[in-house]
Amino acid sequence: MDRKEFRDLASPAEAREAIDSLSLTAGVERVPLEEARGRVLVARLDAELDVPGFDRATLDGYALRARDTFGADEADPARLELVGEVHAGEEPEVELEDGQAAEISTGAVMPDGADAMVPVERTDTAADGDEVLIRTSVAPGDNVMFAGADVAAGERALGPGTRITPRDIGLLSALGIDEVPVRGRPKVGIVSTGDELVRPGEDVDSDRGEIYDVNSYTIAAGVEDAGGEAVLYPHAGDEQDEMERILREAAAECDLVLSSGSTSASAVDVIYRVIEEQGELLLHGVSVKPGKPMLVGRLGVSEPRSDGSEGERRSSSGDSAYVGLPGYPVSAMMVFRTFVAPAIREAAGIPEPKATTVTGRMAREERYGEGRMRLMPVGLVTDGDGDTLVYPVDKGSGATTSLAEADGVVEVPPETDYLENGESVDVRLFSPDVRPPTLLGVGEDDPTLNRLLDRLEHPRYLSVGSRPALRRLREGVPDVAVVAGPIDREVDAVELGRWEREWGLIARAGNPKEIEDLDDLIDRDLRFVNRTTDSGLRTSLGAAAAEIAEDRGVDRREIVDAIDGFDLGLRAHESPARKVIAGDADAGLGLRETAERLDLAFAPVGTQPVRIVANPDRTDKDGVRDLERVLADADEVATR
Amino acid sequence: MDRKEFRDLASPAEAREAIDSLSLTAGVERVPLEEARGRVLVARLDAELDVPGFDRATLDGYALRARDTFGADEADPARLELVGEVHAGEEPEVELEDGQAAEISTGAVMPDGADAMVPVERTDTAADGDEVLIRTSVAPGDNVMFAGADVAAGERALGPGTRITPRDIGLLSALGIDEVPVRGRPKVGIVSTGDELVRPGEDVDSDRGEIYDVNSYTIAAGVEDAGGEAVLYPHAGDEQDEMERILREAAAECDLVLSSGSTSASAVDVIYRVIEEQGELLLHGVSVKPGKPMLVGRLGVSEPRSDGSEGERRSSSGDSAYVGLPGYPVSAMMVFRTFVAPAIREAAGIPEPKATTVTGRMAREERYGEGRMRLMPVGLVTDGDGDTLVYPVDKGSGATTSLAEADGVVEVPPETDYLENGESVDVRLFSPDVRPPTLLGVGEDDPTLNRLLDRLEHPRYLSVGSRPALRRLREGVPDVAVVAGPIDREVDAVELGRWEREWGLIARAGNPKEIEDLDDLIDRDLRFVNRTTDSGLRTSLGAAAAEIAEDRGVDRREIVDAIDGFDLGLRAHESPARKVIAGDADAGLGLRETAERLDLAFAPVGTQPVRIVANPDRTDKDGVRDLERVLADADEVATR
Repeated sequence: MDRKEFRDLASPAEAREAIDSLSLTAGVERVPLEEARGRVLVARLDAELDVPGFDRATLDGYALRARDTFGADEADPARLELVGEVHAGEEPEVELEDGQAAEISTGAVMPDGADAMVPVERTDTAADGDEVLIRTSVAPGDNVMFAGADVAAGERALGPGTRITPRDIGLLSALGIDEVPVRGRPKVGIVSTGDELVRPGEDVDSDRGEIYDVNSYTIAAGVEDAGGEAVLYPHAGDEQDEMERILREAAAECDLVLSSGSTSASAVDVIYRVIEEQGELLLHGVSVKPGKPMLVGRLGVSEPRSDGSEGERRSSSGDSAYVGLPGYPVSAMMVFRTFVAPAIREAAGIPEPKATTVTGRMAREERYGEGRMRLMPVGLVTDGDGDTLVYPVDKGSGATTSLAEADGVVEVPPETDYLENGESVDVRLFSPDVRPPTLLGVGEDDPTLNRLLDRLEHPRYLSVGSRPALRRLREGVPDVAVVAGPIDREVDAVELGRWEREWGLIARAGNPKEIEDLDDLIDRDLRFVNRTTDSGLRTSLGAAAAEIAEDRGVDRREIVDAIDGFDLGLRAHESPARKVIAGDADAGLGLRETAERLDLAFAPVGTQPVRIVANPDRTDKDGVRDLERVLADADEVATR
Repeated sequence: MDRKEFRDLASPAEAREAIDSLSLTAGVERVPLEEARGRVLVARLDAELDVPGFDRATLDGYALRARDTFGADEADPARLELVGEVHAGEEPEVELEDGQAAEISTGAVMPDGADAMVPVERTDTAADGDEVLIRTSVAPGDNVMFAGADVAAGERALGPGTRITPRDIGLLSALGIDEVPVRGRPKVGIVSTGDELVRPGEDVDSDRGEIYDVNSYTIAAGVEDAGGEAVLYPHAGDEQDEMERILREAAAECDLVLSSGSTSASAVDVIYRVIEEQGELLLHGVSVKPGKPMLVGRLGVSEPRSDGSEGERRSSSGDSAYVGLPGYPVSAMMVFRTFVAPAIREAAGIPEPKATTVTGRMAREERYGEGRMRLMPVGLVTDGDGDTLVYPVDKGSGATTSLAEADGVVEVPPETDYLENGESVDVRLFSPDVRPPTLLGVGEDDPTLNRLLDRLEHPRYLSVGSRPALRRLREGVPDVAVVAGPIDREVDAVELGRWEREWGLIARAGNPKEIEDLDDLIDRDLRFVNRTTDSGLRTSLGAAAAEIAEDRGVDRREIVDAIDGFDLGLRAHESPARKVIAGDADAGLGLRETAERLDLAFAPVGTQPVRIVANPDRTDKDGVRDLERVLADADEVATR
C-alpha cells in the first residue's frame, strides 16, 4: 500500500481551507412550525394573505358610519338605530345604512356599510335598547384595523438566512404557515476507534486497560452545539475489515464523518488505507498543538474508480467529508472546536456566536517554542480589582477531564516563545454563556468542603493537595487555599474559617484483621494504602510515625519502611478506602466520615484542622464573602 | 358569583412577587448522557472510580524499571531483555524483573514490575529482537499516567446547579456515568381562547372574522427558549364548560398554565369563575403597558375546599400555577418575556442570559404619560459613527407581527413623560444572539427589491411606501429609502442606484373584460382596486389620470371619481392583483411582473423609476456598501 507523502505539516490556515473545500451543506428540510425555532430559512417567505384578513374592530363598541357622528359630544350625542350585533368569529349578518349602528366586539368583522367604530365607554343605549347614543365624533377608519394593515399579501415576510426566533414564529403563524423550508442540519457521524473503549454505563475492566469512551459523547455534544446532528456509530476495533465497514456505513449516511480514538500506528494505517481506497486524503498533519495528527479528506461509498484516475474530486452524493481527530480527548476537542465546529456552523447557516472573546492578563509565565500554533485551554479568575486573570489548564495530554476545568482557549501563534506574567491575551470562551467561576479554590480534598461548595453558586475547586495549594496561593492565582494538617510554611493569607476532622485507619467492614492503631501496621504483616505527599493527611500520618519512632527510640525511616505500602500514595480522600473495599489492601489512610459513609471499620489516630485561607487582595470578592458566610455553618456541615 | 375586588392595578414588582410565590419547580428527572447537554444538575456528582483506572503508558515504546536505565544515553545504551508486549485493551501477561523490558502501546496497562517507560524513538531492538537498547535514562513515573491522576475516586466531579456543557459530558463519560439527575423542565400548558382562532395550516375564513392563532406558537417557542417544556392544548371557545375542562386538564398535567386570547368580557368572566372555583386568584391587573389585564393565580384540579376556608395556599401536587396573558400577540409576548420567562428560567435552574442589554440613543422623541410602566418594543440601527440608534416599533396593539421587526425592549418607568430625541436608553435584547440588522431600509414594496434584499446578510426592510420613506430618511432613522414614481420633494440623500418598472392594470387571466387602458376604467362600469396614497404606483396613476383630464379638458377629480374604487387603496404591491383573483375587482393597479407571476392579464400604462437613496452620513456603513454592490446587478435582477 503506497501512502501519500505529506512531508510538511500544513499550516492552520491550510487546514481550514481544506475543511472549507469539503462542502458539508445538508440540503433543505421542511419542518413544522413547532420545530422551527433556531432553524435557518433557506428561502424568502412572502405573505400569501393579508393580516388581518378583514377590516377588524379593535375595541368592544359600535360599528357605524363616521359621518353620522360628526358634531356629537357628551352633551349632544348622536342617536343611531341599533340594527344588530357582530361577535368575533362570526360573519356579520347586517349591512349598515345611514343613521344605523351595530354592536361589535373586539376582533369582529366590520359589517358592510360601516367605516368606523366607537368604544362602548363613549356610548349609552336608549329607547329600550333599540337605539344607541354616541357621545363622541369619529373619523373614517377610527378604531378599525384594515385588512392587510399588519402584513399585506405579497409583502416580503422573512428573508433567506433568517434564524427563526419566537417572534418570527409569531409572524409565520399569523400568516397561517405551519411548515417552513430550512437548512438541513449537517449529519455528522462519529466513529471512535480503539479496542480498549467501553461505553459509559457498561462495566470497565481496568486490569485489561479498558477505559470509557470520552470522545464520542463530547464530540457529539459539540456537534449539536454547532447546529449539526450527531450520529454515534459502534466502536470500531483496530481491525481493518470492521473499521472499513463502519466508516463506509457512516460515509453513506452522513455529510461528515469524524473519527477519533486509537492512536496506535496500525489503526492509523487502517484509516489511511480506507480513505485512500475509498476516497481522497487532502491533508495529513497540522502544525498545531495539540492536534498535529489531524487528517482531512473525503470518504466515498462507491467502489474505487476503475480507470485509476487521480487528482479529481469526487462529487457523487454518496461521498462524505472526513476529518480524523486526535485520540486524546483534550486534543480531539481542541481540534474539533478550532477547525470542525466553524465548518458545521457554516453549513447549518448559523452565525459565529458573538461576544465570545474576553481579554485578560496571564496569571503566570508560560513558555512555548515548538514552532506550532498552540491551542491553550485556560481558566479565568477575577482578581481583587475585578480584572480577569488567565491561567493555563493542563493536566497533560492524556487527561480526559481538564476541559471541564477550563473556560476557553488562547491561540498562541507559532512564533511566540513565551507569554509573560501579566501579558494581555484574548480568550475565546467555549460558548457565549460561559461564566467564569465566582470563586477559585485549590487545596485539600475533603467531604465537608465538598458540602460547603455545594452551597455556593458556580465555584471552581481544584483538589491539588495542601502543599501545592499554598504555593499556588503565593503565586496569586486562586482566591482561596484549603489546607489540612500541620503546615510549617508561612504564607501571607487571611484565614476565613476552619474545622476539625478525625483521621485514622480504614479497614474492611467488621475489622476482620483487628486493626486498632498504627502499631499494628508497623508490627504486623498488613498491606496499607497511603495518600500522596501533597495531602494533609499524609503529613499528619508522617508526624504520628515520627512520634512512634521517638517513643521507640528508632529512626523515623525505620518505622515507615516497616509499613508495607507507606510509599504508595493515592490522590483523593476516598481512594485508599476503595482499595480496601477492592481487597487490594488491609488498611488505608482516611477519615472517620469516609469509613462511616462506606460502612467500613475505622481505627482513629488523631484529629487535624482544615483551614480555609484567602489571598489578602481577594477578601472583598463576592465569591470569597459567600464562602465566608457558608463557613459560619461549617461545624454543622462537618458533623452532618 | 362574587368577583374578588382588585381596585388598584398591582405594580410590576408586585406582579413579579406574585409569580415568584407560585413555585414552578418541576422536580428531578434522570436523563441519558446524550440528552444532558444544557440541562442543570440537581446534585453533586462525585467520581466513583479512578481515571485512568490503571497505570497507563502515554506513548508507544517500552515499559521497564527506571533504575535499569540510569546512566544510559545515545552512545552508551542500556541493554534489556525483551520479555513480551502489552497492547491497549489487553491485560499484561508479563511481570518484569530487573533487566527486563516489555513492548507497550499508548494507553496500555503498565505491567507489574515496571515503573516507567521509554518512547520507541529513543530505542533500538537488537539480538534478533530478543533485546532492546534504551538510549536515554528515565526516572520512575516517566511517561506513565498513574491511576487516578486525572480524577480520583471520591473526588468532587461536578457541583449541583452545573449547567452541563460538552466538556462536562467529557468528564461524565470518563467516569462511566451514562445518566444524570437534572432539574425537570417546568411543563407549561398553553391554552388560547377565542372562537375566532384557527391553527396555522388550516383554512381561515376571513368573512367570518377568523384569524390564525399566533399566541400559542409564539409563547410555546418562548417557553422552550426559557428552558421549559411547552404543551399546546386545543383552543378553548368562549363557552364555560369547555374552557373549564381544558383549564383543569392543563392544570393536572402542567406546572404552569398560561392562557391568552379572547379579550371579550364574557371569556374573562369564565376564566375568573374557573380560577375562583378551582383555585385562587392572587392578582388581577398590572400597571404596565401593554399588559394591564394580566391575571396571576393558582389552578386546582381537586374539588373546591368544603370548609370554605380562605387565604391559605393550597399546596397539593395537583395544583398548577396560572398566568393569564393579554390577548393581543404583542402584549402577550411582552408580558410573557417580562414576568413569566424569568420565573420559568428560575424553575429550570438556568441563569439569566448575560450581556443582553445594549445602550443606544433614542432616534426620535417619544411621549408617554399614562402613569403605567411602558414595555416599548424597539428596533436598533447603527448610525454613521457606529453608534446605536433606538427607534420604537409600534404598529398598534392589534398588530401581530411587529415583534419580528424589533430587536428588544426598553422599559420606560411610569413617571417618565417623554424620552427625548438623542436620550440614552438601555435596550434589553430579545435574546443574547440578537444582532441588529446590517441595513435598515424603508420605502416602496417592490419585487426586484425583494430579490436584492435576499442577497444581503440580515437586512431589515419596512415597506412603508415612498412618501413616508422620504420623511423617515429626513428624520435620520433608516440607512436608505426606496422611492418609486415621481417625487416632488427634495431630500438630502445620495442615490445608490435605480431601475425601471412597468406598471399598469392587472385583469383576470385571459382578460375577459378586455381592459386595455385607463380610459376603460373611466368610461366603463368596471370595479377597480388602487394602492394607498403612500405608494409610488398610486402617484404615477394620479399623474396619468391628470394627463387624461387635461387631454379631455375636464377636472382631474372628475376623472378619478369616474373610476369605481379609485379611493380604495391597498398597501402591498400584490394586493390589488389578489383582489382580482378573488373576483372582488375587475382590474387592479400593479406591475407587469406581478401579472406575469400570477398568470393574470396586464394592460401597460407606463414605466416608473425605483430609486434607492441613502442617508449621506451612512454611505460608508458596511450594509450600505453591500447594498450598493448588489445594486450593480439590479438590472439583471429586475428582468429575471
